Amino acid sequence: MQELKLEQLTPADFAPFGVVLDKDLAEKRMINEGTTERFHALAMADTEAEGGRTILSLFRGQPRVFPYRITMMERHPLGSQAFFPVTNRTWIAVVALDDDGRPGEPRAFRVPGNTGLQYGRNIWHHPLIAVGEPSQFLVMDREGEGDNLEEIGYPAPYVITEP
Amino acid sequence: MQELKLEQLTPADFAPFGVVLDKDLAEKRMINEGTTERFHALAMADTEAEGGRTILSLFRGQPRVFPYRITMMERHPLGSQAFFPVTNRTWIAVVALDDDGRPGEPRAFRVPGNTGLQYGRNIWHHPLIAVGEPSQFLVMDREGEGDNLEEIGYPAPYVITEP
Repeated sequence: MQELKLEQLTPADFAPFGVVLDKDLAEKRMINEGTTERFHALAMADTEAEGGRTILSLFRGQPRVFPYRITMMERHPLGSQAFFPVTNRTWIAVVALDDDGRPGEPRAFRVPGNTGLQYGRNIWHHPLIAVGEPSQFLVMDREGEGDNLEEIGYPAPYVITEP
Repeated sequence: MQELKLEQLTPADFAPFGVVLDKDLAEKRMINEGTTERFHALAMADTEAEGGRTILSLFRGQPRVFPYRITMMERHPLGSQAFFPVTNRTWIAVVALDDDGRPGEPRAFRVPGNTGLQYGRNIWHHPLIAVGEPSQFLVMDREGEGDNLEEIGYPAPYVITEP
């Protein structure tokens, strides 16, 4: 069993897997006669494959128990999936590049509670990892026909010792 | 100047204007081996007109000062626009049916801090009304070509005396 070290999240490190949703990285537009700042287009949905539509859902994740074992990964072949915390708690994202149809070596990022991520379409990632308390996330992803979920186990688990 | 009374938000009352985003109204699915509840499809984007795409942005609204005068409304002819609070503070939505190309009599709803709204495409609404403190909202709306904003003033203002 291999230890999986948590990395600090940077847009450059995350770029192969998707987009970091951080208002400080976005273009800021003043709207509504100066009463509102619009941090524009943190993410753009990629959900149109095979007639897909874009939906907004709410996820409530129970906190994981640490040490936590990463035993499997999933991906959505037909659509991107964006997560943004509503409860402002740090969370953990685990992602991997594809290795001939299977998830490669995982990388784990500690994500601040005011920051979201969009996993690119067909990018391997671990299901939601909430930390400490039940945590809520708004999720923008795809609704539509077709098989949009693939799950594969790792031959041996990776372990995150503590959040 | 006419007083505009705040109504309690109900899905039935809001139905002519769009959708209430409330997890307790959504279909609940258990996912991720029972660790996550997915409150499915609070809203579906209606942004495809004229080649539009769906984006996620963050709005930070300064609180309005009360009594607050509603002097104008806006609408987005090419796309729906969903707001969901990230800062869990009550907010106010003002909407109106169309009256021959102009906003009709407005209705004002007090929206709980854990509840979002999606304004339907081309539905008259007032720009974001935050209450009390600067408040942040995730916004799912449309990116693309075409003129997606129309603004029209009321002949006489409506006033919301207090939040």
